[in-house]
Amino acid sequence: MGLLGGSVARSIRRTVPGVHVVGVVRCAEKGQRWIELGIIDSVAESIEQGCQDVDVVVVATPVDLVAASVIRAAEVSQADCLITDVGSTKRTIVQAVLRDAGASAKFVAAHPIAGSEKTGAEHATADLFVGKVIVLTPSEQTPKRQLDLADHFWRRTGGRIVTLSPEDHDTHLASVSHVPHLASSAVAKLINQDSANLVGSGWLDITRVAAGDPAMWLAICQENRTAIDEQLAHLAGSIEDLRAWIRTHDDASLLRWLKEAKTIRDSF
Amino acid sequence: MGLLGGSVARSIRRTVPGVHVVGVVRCAEKGQRWIELGIIDSVAESIEQGCQDVDVVVVATPVDLVAASVIRAAEVSQADCLITDVGSTKRTIVQAVLRDAGASAKFVAAHPIAGSEKTGAEHATADLFVGKVIVLTPSEQTPKRQLDLADHFWRRTGGRIVTLSPEDHDTHLASVSHVPHLASSAVAKLINQDSANLVGSGWLDITRVAAGDPAMWLAICQENRTAIDEQLAHLAGSIEDLRAWIRTHDDASLLRWLKEAKTIRDSF
Repeated sequence: MGLLGGSVARSIRRTVPGVHVVGVVRCAEKGQRWIELGIIDSVAESIEQGCQDVDVVVVATPVDLVAASVIRAAEVSQADCLITDVGSTKRTIVQAVLRDAGASAKFVAAHPIAGSEKTGAEHATADLFVGKVIVLTPSEQTPKRQLDLADHFWRRTGGRIVTLSPEDHDTHLASVSHVPHLASSAVAKLINQDSANLVGSGWLDITRVAAGDPAMWLAICQENRTAIDEQLAHLAGSIEDLRAWIRTHDDASLLRWLKEAKTIRDSF
Repeated sequence: MGLLGGSVARSIRRTVPGVHVVGVVRCAEKGQRWIELGIIDSVAESIEQGCQDVDVVVVATPVDLVAASVIRAAEVSQADCLITDVGSTKRTIVQAVLRDAGASAKFVAAHPIAGSEKTGAEHATADLFVGKVIVLTPSEQTPKRQLDLADHFWRRTGGRIVTLSPEDHDTHLASVSHVPHLASSAVAKLINQDSANLVGSGWLDITRVAAGDPAMWLAICQENRTAIDEQLAHLAGSIEDLRAWIRTHDDASLLRWLKEAKTIRDSF
């Protein structure tokens, strides 16, 4: 029950009348607070306790814990239960779940492209997913019925469904999310005591996501090493180009490059 | 008369009753529009025409044109005129003006740390500088009287005055503005057709400034080559570290690095 899990709960409670949301939390006191805040209806302190009589399980842990939680939820849940997740990487999760036939029959991997540098269910909002892309990455083993259920479920959050293979998802996300995040952190680390009072709104925007949860981003890097390394190589190549152009006064190349970047950004 | 020049005009007109602001514009029609929008009171089509009978000249051109404009304005303006600028680089501008004794006696270089990826005086606002840092970078030749005038003038925009040497300014700005801008553009260029519909709010924030004016940023790179190259080297070093840690599964180093970046960003 963090920002994403809480926001799924809030958005489903808003759009599905009469739904009962069980929060699986490790800390009972926090669970009470989520109930008081209207995020969930009741609390369970384990997957076993929380997932037995439910129609849908949403695993919203850091990515390195998703597969094990999916498999455990599959063991204890009803035969027709849909299990989905919110993880920012998909390939290793889908591969790990595929090794368990029971879990594969219930699981549809999902990644809502929504979030915040803020963490914790107290920042959860019912409209976090409205208009956002939600990527579903079924495997070849995913039953059609489960995929339809996942599509139906995630649409209720207000998101737009896009379906990709787990591999394509991870490659694309490395280029538009994982490596941009690392670049943001690297920019933050260029600062020193003397320059800290000279930051403007550009720096604040570029570095905003660097305030994200380090453990969560470490797990993302662990799960998507190859694609991240490849995109980091592209980024390093750009920086080498820039340095060469600046040192050799190749202003034409530098201007063309800046214009290309502007054209890309202007298209959003 | 772009975003910054227009915003200086608007902020001074708001805080200095009875002030008359002359806009020096190359295009008379645009000048008429700025008058209609209430940004300026009258138009001049040349520095000669616009700077003869004024108390303050604010040069708001791209950085590669600032020094020549300052020198020209110094030639035609009154003996006690204050000339200042808004350029994002300072060392080469101050050095070029220093070669002209008449211009040095009137000029106080300034850099308001405020702006936007938007360009054009139509986006100018009277509160662009409120609460923002305005760096003054006097040389050893700058008369005390001019520095006091510049301090007085820029405070009227609502900014907070910080005084630095031109060299320190450029070094610091490379780390918190110029290279972050290039990193933002480099991140924008990682995208491809297939990943373009998967961007989230993080990507949009990181790449926002990549929509800035390429000609303006080329000029900044030209004026601050050494410091920018040095900070690009730091950035390249970070990326090499990241790649090594990700490939060798050195999770402890990666986590420490992510935590350090978060601590920096959290302090803002």
